[in-house]
Amino acid sequence: MTKINKAACVGGGVIGGAWAARFLLSGIDVNMFDPHPEAERIVGEVIANAERAYAMLTMAPLPPRGKLSFVKSIEEAVQGADWIQESVPERVDLKRGVLTQIDAAADPKALIGSSTSGILPTDLQRDMKHPERLFVAHPYNPVYLLPLAELVGGEKTSPAVLEDAKAKLATIGMKGVILKKEIEAFVGDRLLEAVWREGLWLIKDDICDTETLDDVIRYSFGMRWAQMGMFETYRIAGGEAGMRHFIAQFGPCLSWPWTKLTDVVDLDDELTDKIANQSDSQSGAYGIRELERIRDENLVGIMHALKGANGGKGWGSGKLLAEFEAHLWANAQKPEAKIGAEPIRLLDTKVNPSWVDYNGHMTEFRYNQCFADSADALLRLIGVDMDYVAAGHSYYTVEAHNQWLDEAKLGDALYVKAQVLPCDGKKLHTFMWLYRASDDALLATCEHLMLHVASKEGKVLPPLPAVKDKLQQLIDAHACLPLPANAGRVVGQRK
Amino acid sequence: MTKINKAACVGGGVIGGAWAARFLLSGIDVNMFDPHPEAERIVGEVIANAERAYAMLTMAPLPPRGKLSFVKSIEEAVQGADWIQESVPERVDLKRGVLTQIDAAADPKALIGSSTSGILPTDLQRDMKHPERLFVAHPYNPVYLLPLAELVGGEKTSPAVLEDAKAKLATIGMKGVILKKEIEAFVGDRLLEAVWREGLWLIKDDICDTETLDDVIRYSFGMRWAQMGMFETYRIAGGEAGMRHFIAQFGPCLSWPWTKLTDVVDLDDELTDKIANQSDSQSGAYGIRELERIRDENLVGIMHALKGANGGKGWGSGKLLAEFEAHLWANAQKPEAKIGAEPIRLLDTKVNPSWVDYNGHMTEFRYNQCFADSADALLRLIGVDMDYVAAGHSYYTVEAHNQWLDEAKLGDALYVKAQVLPCDGKKLHTFMWLYRASDDALLATCEHLMLHVASKEGKVLPPLPAVKDKLQQLIDAHACLPLPANAGRVVGQRK
Repeated sequence: MTKINKAACVGGGVIGGAWAARFLLSGIDVNMFDPHPEAERIVGEVIANAERAYAMLTMAPLPPRGKLSFVKSIEEAVQGADWIQESVPERVDLKRGVLTQIDAAADPKALIGSSTSGILPTDLQRDMKHPERLFVAHPYNPVYLLPLAELVGGEKTSPAVLEDAKAKLATIGMKGVILKKEIEAFVGDRLLEAVWREGLWLIKDDICDTETLDDVIRYSFGMRWAQMGMFETYRIAGGEAGMRHFIAQFGPCLSWPWTKLTDVVDLDDELTDKIANQSDSQSGAYGIRELERIRDENLVGIMHALKGANGGKGWGSGKLLAEFEAHLWANAQKPEAKIGAEPIRLLDTKVNPSWVDYNGHMTEFRYNQCFADSADALLRLIGVDMDYVAAGHSYYTVEAHNQWLDEAKLGDALYVKAQVLPCDGKKLHTFMWLYRASDDALLATCEHLMLHVASKEGKVLPPLPAVKDKLQQLIDAHACLPLPANAGRVVGQRK
Repeated sequence: MTKINKAACVGGGVIGGAWAARFLLSGIDVNMFDPHPEAERIVGEVIANAERAYAMLTMAPLPPRGKLSFVKSIEEAVQGADWIQESVPERVDLKRGVLTQIDAAADPKALIGSSTSGILPTDLQRDMKHPERLFVAHPYNPVYLLPLAELVGGEKTSPAVLEDAKAKLATIGMKGVILKKEIEAFVGDRLLEAVWREGLWLIKDDICDTETLDDVIRYSFGMRWAQMGMFETYRIAGGEAGMRHFIAQFGPCLSWPWTKLTDVVDLDDELTDKIANQSDSQSGAYGIRELERIRDENLVGIMHALKGANGGKGWGSGKLLAEFEAHLWANAQKPEAKIGAEPIRLLDTKVNPSWVDYNGHMTEFRYNQCFADSADALLRLIGVDMDYVAAGHSYYTVEAHNQWLDEAKLGDALYVKAQVLPCDGKKLHTFMWLYRASDDALLATCEHLMLHVASKEGKVLPPLPAVKDKLQQLIDAHACLPLPANAGRVVGQRK
């Protein structure tokens, strides 16, 4: 019910293109309208970045990518769409006109989100016939990775629409946060504006250069804010006495001369040159595409780190990623059709930035991770899912024998094939091969043994019938395959 | 030359205690003076938090912890110290008095840093006899994890002292950034003040509650700022045209009504209650100690993620962590004395938050990581260091046979012992046991085989003489040990 079935993006560019990428990678077809002559190229580049990032981001299988259609008019774009996202330039008259045109052509039930950074939804919905389904859905660059969308309703927006939008955004991995009231620039951009304004003064007055200012942010509160916001951080700073104590202690600073916020800096040519030149010496060693790549890898790494946080329950954007993965798993096509008289393909992944050493080579134990993930995939295939485990049944890995044969490099696409060896199901004995996708080179092998366990009793027992039957199909299908040459060997055995 | 030999902390509390923790964990003795009756308890709690975090943070061995002495006077504290850190309450008269007293009693060459959040160093150094060595070293909570110290000199501060302070901070894992000019609240707190001020308006005006505001930060620009700052982020947003284009595009917003910065909010009882209550419903499910623990684990996770970033070269705080680890390794005591007729202890580590599944159990492949890290430790022990590898010689792992025997949980301390099996050095054949430290329970075993390789030629060759001799000592010392029961076995072999 909360699914998005078809999306329309009116306005491409960096923001519209990244919305499209989010939809497409979640399996949703997108109609894109943007009259800009280079729209297809720009959108294509953003989608390529997003695909690269998603290959590292999610451990769950992405659905078949949605179909992207470039269309010739707003009317054509909105046909059949149940989510329409407007991302045209930031001028109230232009946006209002486009949104009114969308409103007239779209299904009256379709949701309409505006990507505006600061215009009030009340001003945007003024001329609409169905204004109750118009809201601001303000995302942050890079939209395909940063999960936030500020959801803001205008005077005529239905509260139920905002709740519906929030639920639908969750299915594409986003966190919709609903503001209580509309205000220019909403919450995030007001906070950013405050920092930007103060930062400009610090550069203009030669307190520091842009690199120093960035270092101050990223080695201190930037790291705090990636996982807790400002108020939760200050709650901790208040100690056992909490927020009230913090306010008593730091409230007075508000009246000290600690900012130049009351003056607006003049962004004249001189200051623009100064900033641009400092920025060049700070970041000029990297091209913009390279910085984008680094940024995306860093964001993926941060989300991965937070996914394992809080005792494995996840925290912040990492918890959200885990929820998105659970959603993807729940909607994943079961690969049952693949059982046959050949080794079964279990894993497709890419060498992740956090998997490599300083030479850019995949670290020893990440090979083990690929095999462990493949064993998990095999278990899901035979019906050992979250419900089965929650009911107290599981397979435990007890032994593995690995051979490392060749190197994998950052970004290499990898896959694993597995053969089930003769076994009784209480034991699950497999042999796996890890390949590089580009040339099918064999990188490593793993002989792997699991035992089926009743986890509460801690006893080795046969699997339940449904799992046993499914596994037996695999065992039977693979019975005709020759035993792999390296199975049943001891460490150091001569070939 | 840049080493800190002995530190004095004047003022304990959360900030002073965390400075002490940084010094102690880097092997530096600390004299602590704080007349507060509970100073020992408070400092002890901070140090305990820091030790817990460092056990997860660094893969390099920490040196033996420095000695902490609580002393009765400022004069006693500064004796023999070459870095003195003042962290007393934020009142200019109090700080100036304490610093003048420190100055009079300390070695005239000792560096004196003040933890002040906003007072000008010129005002602090006014009455000093040796004012040239006084500077602001402003850290961020939690000081033991966040690497930033803003270094700010006053009118009488020597520029060389700031450079010296920056170099010394690097040896305790910190990033000293030197500001060009002094200004009240320096850079970080001015930016924070701007956000705080705007944030208070948003709460007061009911635009959102504290949880929503925190979510807006941590699901969007907080993640950006953990790894790039504001200017580098905006450089990317400007696209190929870079910073200049960004300013042209977004400069005009400065004059839009996007903030309420020009008014100072009245933090009266009503607003204080409102914030405290919202904060309770946002974060009240966790105690402060629990939030600290979660925060610290998250920060460690972020630094770990960034350590592997940028093609393994590291980025931001992760690169800094790698540099700190390199410093620790360079200063680590070589464990050569331990070679004897018993398995050798190679690794002491703890189950890291990112190592566990949703049940809080260590994931299958993290056992492999422990063994791989132990193999690395063994190599360092026999002289296979960075220089040896850089010269084109190395051991490659080719095979391993693992057995998983028991579970490890989040926070469990683990260690690995290894026995070198008969081999010729061209092959390096070992058997390793992974234990839980609390009860010496055996968790897993690994039979492991490496080959010595000339990496440029890709040929298996004997190691160079120094490594060969060192390894031979180990092989000889272990020759009398019985072959481990599970060595030389195939997967699934009955016991």
